[in-house]
Amino acid sequence: MNLRKKFRIGVIGGSEINSRIYEIAYKVGREIAKNDCILVCGGLGGVMEAVSKGAKENGGIVIGILPGTDADDANPYVDIPIPTGISYARNMIVVLNSDVIIAIDGKYGTLSEISYANIFGKKVIGIETWEIEGVEKADNAEDAVKKAISFLKSNKF
Amino acid sequence: MNLRKKFRIGVIGGSEINSRIYEIAYKVGREIAKNDCILVCGGLGGVMEAVSKGAKENGGIVIGILPGTDADDANPYVDIPIPTGISYARNMIVVLNSDVIIAIDGKYGTLSEISYANIFGKKVIGIETWEIEGVEKADNAEDAVKKAISFLKSNKF
Amino acid sequence: MNLRKKFRIGVIGGSEINSRIYEIAYKVGREIAKNDCILVCGGLGGVMEAVSKGAKENGGIVIGILPGTDADDANPYVDIPIPTGISYARNMIVVLNSDVIIAIDGKYGTLSEISYANIFGKKVIGIETWEIEGVEKADNAEDAVKKAISFLKSNKF
Amino acid sequence: MNLRKKFRIGVIGGSEINSRIYEIAYKVGREIAKNDCILVCGGLGGVMEAVSKGAKENGGIVIGILPGTDADDANPYVDIPIPTGISYARNMIVVLNSDVIIAIDGKYGTLSEISYANIFGKKVIGIETWEIEGVEKADNAEDAVKKAISFLKSNKF
Repeated sequence: MNLRKKFRIGVIGGSEINSRIYEIAYKVGREIAKNDCILVCGGLGGVMEAVSKGAKENGGIVIGILPGTDADDANPYVDIPIPTGISYARNMIVVLNSDVIIAIDGKYGTLSEISYANIFGKKVIGIETWEIEGVEKADNAEDAVKKAISFLKSNKF
Repeated sequence: MNLRKKFRIGVIGGSEINSRIYEIAYKVGREIAKNDCILVCGGLGGVMEAVSKGAKENGGIVIGILPGTDADDANPYVDIPIPTGISYARNMIVVLNSDVIIAIDGKYGTLSEISYANIFGKKVIGIETWEIEGVEKADNAEDAVKKAISFLKSNKF
Repeated sequence: MNLRKKFRIGVIGGSEINSRIYEIAYKVGREIAKNDCILVCGGLGGVMEAVSKGAKENGGIVIGILPGTDADDANPYVDIPIPTGISYARNMIVVLNSDVIIAIDGKYGTLSEISYANIFGKKVIGIETWEIEGVEKADNAEDAVKKAISFLKSNKF
Repeated sequence: MNLRKKFRIGVIGGSEINSRIYEIAYKVGREIAKNDCILVCGGLGGVMEAVSKGAKENGGIVIGILPGTDADDANPYVDIPIPTGISYARNMIVVLNSDVIIAIDGKYGTLSEISYANIFGKKVIGIETWEIEGVEKADNAEDAVKKAISFLKSNKF
């Protein structure tokens, strides 16, 4: 298994979500796993947990970049928890570890990650999230992952 | 002089700006100084330099929170350069050091700071910047600083 | 494969080393892999590269916590590069991601990691490195990994 | 007052200290103030508080680089608290903000700062602290500050 050569898709989104958003995030995780990509996320609850579950239950690998100092803070579907101890400054690290980003729902934590993605020149695809310049809208989970994969294949990665 | 008791107003904005925005930022700095508040900013060019100049030339004190490791990176109007060495993760620290934020123009660096401000519950007042929830619009430099001061005086600070 | 349940052994050490130290570090990596533990290191050259090579060539998994913003900075034996963008402040994150630490040779970067290990209550085993309180001396590569494994098995992990 | 041109002396040391060490740290702060330098420290208790008190009561200016997100964590003698929110990774920032370092007593937090000082090429003068390469021993508070000032004057600063 060559983990280094796999694409990494970062998924960002709210930590407090309703069941509809949970479902979307779960599907995004599932599609990421089916496409043999690594999922990178913030490792905690809400969208982070739903997408991790979707990836994990479909054979994927999940990296969770955590704000705290303890790997045990990660949700149970994270394979590789990365505690950072730098609070919300870890949002930059989530972005640096992603080749492309999918944003789902979310508030200002998500917006900070959309910002970092654009600062570092990473593409952001959005589902029911901030509608601003620098976020390409997707129709649903499948469409978002399809757009992400298509972007990755057409680029230097 | 009791620096500890002075209000701190954070000013964020683009590093590449036109002369009209420069003028606005300069005036914001001037008003901050006239109101005996400390200016906190990212310490570099563009809005950061203009606002620093405005504050410094009107007797104010300027703290510049820098992304690099070298205090000499700061623009010449910064009194207290704070090199952090943590790249754009320093955007969180700019916000943590401000009692209230004024955003002027700006792109994704500014948006990341608007995001952090909302994460940490700090009020953001905006001039010709991102028009999103979590940013209260001001008409001009004087209005923005007036709104900031009024907010600070009516709060627990 | 349940990556989450594997022990993580952090290896720290100098980036400029001689061939004797390279050999020791390689053997430490090999022993870590043979004991089915994950190797965590700083991801760059010197001891970091040698230990990564030893782990990788013996079927192990290598996490490299990088100071820069680019995953490609990692040495070729790293499976999971984690760019952080926070310069030497990433030394804290190397430690937070290790259940126990082995220090080999090294200068002040290594000493900062030994310090963080002791701050966060992580055991440090040393081979030809800083001889200070808070570092338990090992005779050689095999002995160091044996001591690390024995510590991990006798603890709450 | 040109704060930018003043030398900055960083003082590091334990947060839990006895009265003898408190006295030494207080004197170091006093001498720093008398020599018209800015004191930089970690802003909390123990050596940090004692040295801040010594500087503040003798007309000095004190910058406190804090690990948490709240400026109010600073001891009462800090003029310019700088909350960072990045936990012990702020130890790097304490060092980056100092032209020279004086270490007094202290355990592993202090050792991490001694390490960062040497990584970034900053001189460290020590009083009853870690006796390792990279720390020049001073006899007492007055001697340490004298050595620091003499170093600063003979260098490019």
